[in-house]
Amino acid sequence: MNSSSSDSHVAWQGQSWRLRVQTSRTPEGIVVERGAIEHPGAVVLVPVRKTELGFEVLMLHQYRRVLDESILELPAGTRDWQEPWLACAQRELREETGLRANHFQELGRCWPAPGMSNEIMSIYLATGLVPDPLPQDSDEIIEVRPVLLQKMVKMALDGRLQDAKSVVGILRAANFLQGT
Amino acid sequence: MNSSSSDSHVAWQGQSWRLRVQTSRTPEGIVVERGAIEHPGAVVLVPVRKTELGFEVLMLHQYRRVLDESILELPAGTRDWQEPWLACAQRELREETGLRANHFQELGRCWPAPGMSNEIMSIYLATGLVPDPLPQDSDEIIEVRPVLLQKMVKMALDGRLQDAKSVVGILRAANFLQGT
Repeated sequence: MNSSSSDSHVAWQGQSWRLRVQTSRTPEGIVVERGAIEHPGAVVLVPVRKTELGFEVLMLHQYRRVLDESILELPAGTRDWQEPWLACAQRELREETGLRANHFQELGRCWPAPGMSNEIMSIYLATGLVPDPLPQDSDEIIEVRPVLLQKMVKMALDGRLQDAKSVVGILRAANFLQGT
Repeated sequence: MNSSSSDSHVAWQGQSWRLRVQTSRTPEGIVVERGAIEHPGAVVLVPVRKTELGFEVLMLHQYRRVLDESILELPAGTRDWQEPWLACAQRELREETGLRANHFQELGRCWPAPGMSNEIMSIYLATGLVPDPLPQDSDEIIEVRPVLLQKMVKMALDGRLQDAKSVVGILRAANFLQGT
């Protein structure tokens, strides 16, 4: 869009992300406001262990305030602005599942909402899991649910798994493990 | 979280979505602000046609202002608050690809970012494509790119396709078409 003038300001600054609003005036004099979330990025974990029945993935049943319901999803969390990605991955895994991973395999990245936010998510397969808990965030209501990976693949494909980052993480992890 | 007081207000109202900020005071007197995007929802289209080489999907190469780059993704768009989902699907498909679909098959829904936004995306396999363009949004920079579905599946799994909704749509569509 050609605009004869344009400026931007931070309309709200939260604990981890902020809203920037860009105001521009078209050559016809129409003022247009556009919002953009500025975000430090996040990690998504696919914690997997072997069982007698095959690979098992540790899912979370987590209350999401904006939806006012509890949903099934992979462990994940927002990075601090300067935090190294792998340090963030280990921290979130320990906070949300009480386990640390001895091995992280990156499964690529994804943008959850590139129409409104520059958030990028780094997805890791987490294996070699051993107990090593960190305190949970006080405002999080989380329950760990081990599910067979094969079942999660079905749910990701048929629509029962509705959390987008979890669909991406589950299907990339299953594809990676198939090749190993 | 137990809070002794709590209220919320709309901190910014955009053309399609708004930011609501909830302010609460803990029993210890600490003020906490939390932001939540209130969103009317969106549609994601997987427009597929048969070619001699197999199924082909119409991807977009689209400039995303918040990333300041052009990315590969499926056609998609925000619903108007009162718009029926299928009307929105047909409108977005015609605006972004110049084609209408004679058949829509729902492939489930997904939440792109349930930690910050209540946006839900309805994903449709769109087939029976015929030319029937609508004018594009004036601020969108879009190029249609037909790609073999099999190639998109590979790119969704190995991380080259980074747009989360598109990974979900491609892999669900490929799974659905395999069963037909």
